[in-house]
Amino acid sequence: MSDSEATTSRVHEAIPDQNTVQVLRDMANRLRIQSIRAMCSSQSSHSMSCNSTAEIMSVLLFHTMRYKQADPENPDNDRFILPKKLALSDAVIGWCGQGLGAACGMAYTGKYFDKASFRVYCLVSGDISEGSVWEAMAFASHHALDNLVVIFDTNCVIYGASSPPGHCTDVYQKRCEAFGCNTYVVDGRNVEALCQVFWQAAQVKNRPTAVIAKTFRGRGMPNIEDAENWYGKPMSKERADAIIELIESQIQTNRNLTPNLPIEDSPEISIGDVKMSTPPAYQMGSKLATQKACGLALAKLGHVNERLIMLDGDNKNTFSEVFKNEHPERFIECFIAEQNMVSVALGCASRGRTIAFASTFAALLIRAFDQIRAGAVAEMNINLIGSHCGVSVGEDGPLLMALEDLAMFRAIPNCTIFYPSDAVSTERAVYLAANNKGMCYIRTSQPETAIIYTPQETFQIGQAKVVRENVNDKVTVIGAGVTLHEALAAADNLSKEDIFIRVIDLFTIKPLDVATIITNAKATGGRIITVEDHYPEGGIGEAVCAAVSTEPGIVVHQLAVLEVPRSGKPQELLDKFGISAKQIAVTVKCIVMD
Amino acid sequence: MSDSEATTSRVHEAIPDQNTVQVLRDMANRLRIQSIRAMCSSQSSHSMSCNSTAEIMSVLLFHTMRYKQADPENPDNDRFILPKKLALSDAVIGWCGQGLGAACGMAYTGKYFDKASFRVYCLVSGDISEGSVWEAMAFASHHALDNLVVIFDTNCVIYGASSPPGHCTDVYQKRCEAFGCNTYVVDGRNVEALCQVFWQAAQVKNRPTAVIAKTFRGRGMPNIEDAENWYGKPMSKERADAIIELIESQIQTNRNLTPNLPIEDSPEISIGDVKMSTPPAYQMGSKLATQKACGLALAKLGHVNERLIMLDGDNKNTFSEVFKNEHPERFIECFIAEQNMVSVALGCASRGRTIAFASTFAALLIRAFDQIRAGAVAEMNINLIGSHCGVSVGEDGPLLMALEDLAMFRAIPNCTIFYPSDAVSTERAVYLAANNKGMCYIRTSQPETAIIYTPQETFQIGQAKVVRENVNDKVTVIGAGVTLHEALAAADNLSKEDIFIRVIDLFTIKPLDVATIITNAKATGGRIITVEDHYPEGGIGEAVCAAVSTEPGIVVHQLAVLEVPRSGKPQELLDKFGISAKQIAVTVKCIVMD
Repeated sequence: MSDSEATTSRVHEAIPDQNTVQVLRDMANRLRIQSIRAMCSSQSSHSMSCNSTAEIMSVLLFHTMRYKQADPENPDNDRFILPKKLALSDAVIGWCGQGLGAACGMAYTGKYFDKASFRVYCLVSGDISEGSVWEAMAFASHHALDNLVVIFDTNCVIYGASSPPGHCTDVYQKRCEAFGCNTYVVDGRNVEALCQVFWQAAQVKNRPTAVIAKTFRGRGMPNIEDAENWYGKPMSKERADAIIELIESQIQTNRNLTPNLPIEDSPEISIGDVKMSTPPAYQMGSKLATQKACGLALAKLGHVNERLIMLDGDNKNTFSEVFKNEHPERFIECFIAEQNMVSVALGCASRGRTIAFASTFAALLIRAFDQIRAGAVAEMNINLIGSHCGVSVGEDGPLLMALEDLAMFRAIPNCTIFYPSDAVSTERAVYLAANNKGMCYIRTSQPETAIIYTPQETFQIGQAKVVRENVNDKVTVIGAGVTLHEALAAADNLSKEDIFIRVIDLFTIKPLDVATIITNAKATGGRIITVEDHYPEGGIGEAVCAAVSTEPGIVVHQLAVLEVPRSGKPQELLDKFGISAKQIAVTVKCIVMD
Repeated sequence: MSDSEATTSRVHEAIPDQNTVQVLRDMANRLRIQSIRAMCSSQSSHSMSCNSTAEIMSVLLFHTMRYKQADPENPDNDRFILPKKLALSDAVIGWCGQGLGAACGMAYTGKYFDKASFRVYCLVSGDISEGSVWEAMAFASHHALDNLVVIFDTNCVIYGASSPPGHCTDVYQKRCEAFGCNTYVVDGRNVEALCQVFWQAAQVKNRPTAVIAKTFRGRGMPNIEDAENWYGKPMSKERADAIIELIESQIQTNRNLTPNLPIEDSPEISIGDVKMSTPPAYQMGSKLATQKACGLALAKLGHVNERLIMLDGDNKNTFSEVFKNEHPERFIECFIAEQNMVSVALGCASRGRTIAFASTFAALLIRAFDQIRAGAVAEMNINLIGSHCGVSVGEDGPLLMALEDLAMFRAIPNCTIFYPSDAVSTERAVYLAANNKGMCYIRTSQPETAIIYTPQETFQIGQAKVVRENVNDKVTVIGAGVTLHEALAAADNLSKEDIFIRVIDLFTIKPLDVATIITNAKATGGRIITVEDHYPEGGIGEAVCAAVSTEPGIVVHQLAVLEVPRSGKPQELLDKFGISAKQIAVTVKCIVMD
């Protein structure tokens, strides 16, 4: 194609002929009718607001976007992220202010990893009040995501009342500009104007585009358009039929448009079957913090698969720096905006384009519970790493000590939770997570702990390790992370008094190795002690209690952090909060003497 | 005081004399020295960035703010919210982007409930990337909080790397203006300029003020000022001593300033001992959704105590509308920004100024886990209501079904969790929550369920009710909310086959009535079935398993939602996910036949 041909083609793209414009209008009205029908049949009223965006949808789907209709998951396709309930690809991660972060992840992947032509369109609606939207806007402009277009649907009602700034498009405009976007304001019903701004957006370099579309809900529906008090009220069939008839009367053509085909320039990639290059290079008995081992393992695995990426939330202490130094082109700085970090990771991992690991303090991941939850509902394949867990963090105080992260991740459906206890098992956990489908969480710790496994030790998801065993064992003690080492120390001390305990390293908290737990419990008189650097609720102790709850002969004693901790030295805090070797030994003696 | 005297006083306030300016500079340097000493002794490096704000602190604490030094909790005092670790009042709720929301709650309370003169100052630092900051900014300008001043400390490093927009004060300025703030940019070391902008801020009506202070971390410390790579590295004593000596050499005076006294115009209030005006006005056997009963109860209790307030996140379906209609002056619209809603509630409740109830869909409260957690660490007294819990929501799909909220709230230290099963117990729960110190969560449901208690029935926190009992009971079934009604239906059906079951209504999930559970389990052959509209992890079943874990003779069978649900009719979903009367009956038969 010559330059002049290209220009002609572009002008054509920008302003379609009048016939095409009418067809796009008609297709908008057909979408509108579909939306009313869907609403009536589902008894849900959410699709009502889809009416306001019918022209936007029509222009994007049948004029602007390039994609293969028959192959919605094709990596070359343009992406479209919606906060609303339409059965389109990638829709579910658009829930309530989260869509734009995921769109950022897709755009980042397209621009920096795939270096491909696909573009990303994201519709933001009443969820503009969610702060995560502004985290994503800041991210998009900082990373110069010029392949991203965010459309603000200012009908601005999602669950009930009108959100500020309502229809004040100038306020939206100022905010988008202040957050670094190339910004347009358009009439959301004007098909020609929409065609033009989407074309213009594609010409802009190094900045994302925001399109502020003035829209009204229920457009085309007498007595409903922009009215209050309709929310949650399904429409009667008679009324729906009357409205559909009215809309149908406005349709002038019966032509269909086929979307433009994508430019096929996404690279072929492989994210499956990641092999560990060499066994973990650690000596038994030497010491390393699992959070450091985790950073090293990721950097190492980054050399094996070039689609393995890492995201971090502005932390130098999580050892993601190692990865950043070795693979700077695959490290995404997300700053202190954990919700957006998780959404970006979901976007990067969508359509299997990357193996994404997002890392921050475990306490800060708590901020992203809703994003994690939505990712799990969408069956997304991302890996999260939470460092500095529990009271063993020490001096930095209670807010930085994650003591509820296991409760959070255990409640995430199908989430695999690794809680490695030494550097070898940490490296194995990273490798297993990279190969595992679905969401994974790796919980790591700050204290330097001894390496207890040989480099050749094999690990599997859902398989615990019996790390101390004797025929005379009276109790099974279950630990993970720092508490495993406390349990081993307790075992050493108790053995001097001829009291023997079995010690189990769970390795994965979910799925839990129920068989190993029950077998060993039965071999030790039905006695279990769980010890965890976490609150008791939703943690390891409760998981074990539930696992043995139908076994009448097994009793479980839980050691966990029972109150809000304060600052202190790590070992002092383990003692103070009852999860150190000393308390384990005391508890063992109490139980054995019973 | 005459008008001209007032003007003179104000000008004096705006620009202090040169001597005072020097004293403020010297006091800033003394704060700097204290900060270095604190850092050295605590081994934490977070206080480093306190150096950058020394002049801001000095001007606020010794010139601008009005408060009683000897009475830091006095309601007339100006408030100061910090994201950093200084031992000042209200500091702990300033964690990581949450402080501004809490400051909004205090300012809202001052302006609209107390109608008092106190002002609220909030320092925002490296946590500017957190979206919750922008939720709060939107809230502050929407509600015209002209008694609020937010100071952006652009030293912009909190955990490691520099956050965008870094030192670009023009970007901060545009963003603050776009979010509706009266905005000033100042040199954060310039004592005179700081005095002046804080004075100007107090003259502005109907808009919050943002002060963008250009600051540098480690100011006054050779080789540390704004350098990278210092993070997390405590300073050597020798180096600290040398720096302290340098700073001391700059101190020219040894005068101290005493802060201005507050204007004492906060009303005397009472938030204790809220009495229910009349017993719940419900007839046994009639039907009402607990989420509706909750809204009605709050509106009713609002007539008893005029400091009872309600916040909602833009939902018409949570029945907070009833409260809004009856007490419009005590209803705070928080729009779809749940994190900020919780922070605002914390601010409103601080210093015991209100009894705050914040309400939204339980699924959306998940968004605010970190704010809830921080509130609990600060031992704040707020009440949260989560409606539309579980699969019984029905058609609106899995993201709107909270199935992990119990896991979340159970992991909150000292949180009281109510899960009422009918309208009477819901009203009692609201009343108990209003009177309870500490955090409360009330989980409510959408289906209309039968009223099973008389208006006179008394309820206590931590006290379960045995609602069905027979000497021949073979199993104890524990339910709550919709599942209690399923259990009762199962009991009815099973009794026709001469199989009798005991049914327990937990009423509070935390604290759990362990004694009632164990007594009844023992009376029914040691058999318990738990049934809950929640995932198994961290829910009622695990709580019960843990409660009986040291009782060898008791077995627990858990019925819970085991997979991500989909849309459907409520009763169909209860069936499909195994928590309906039918499945309870099947499980009972299996167990009894064993």
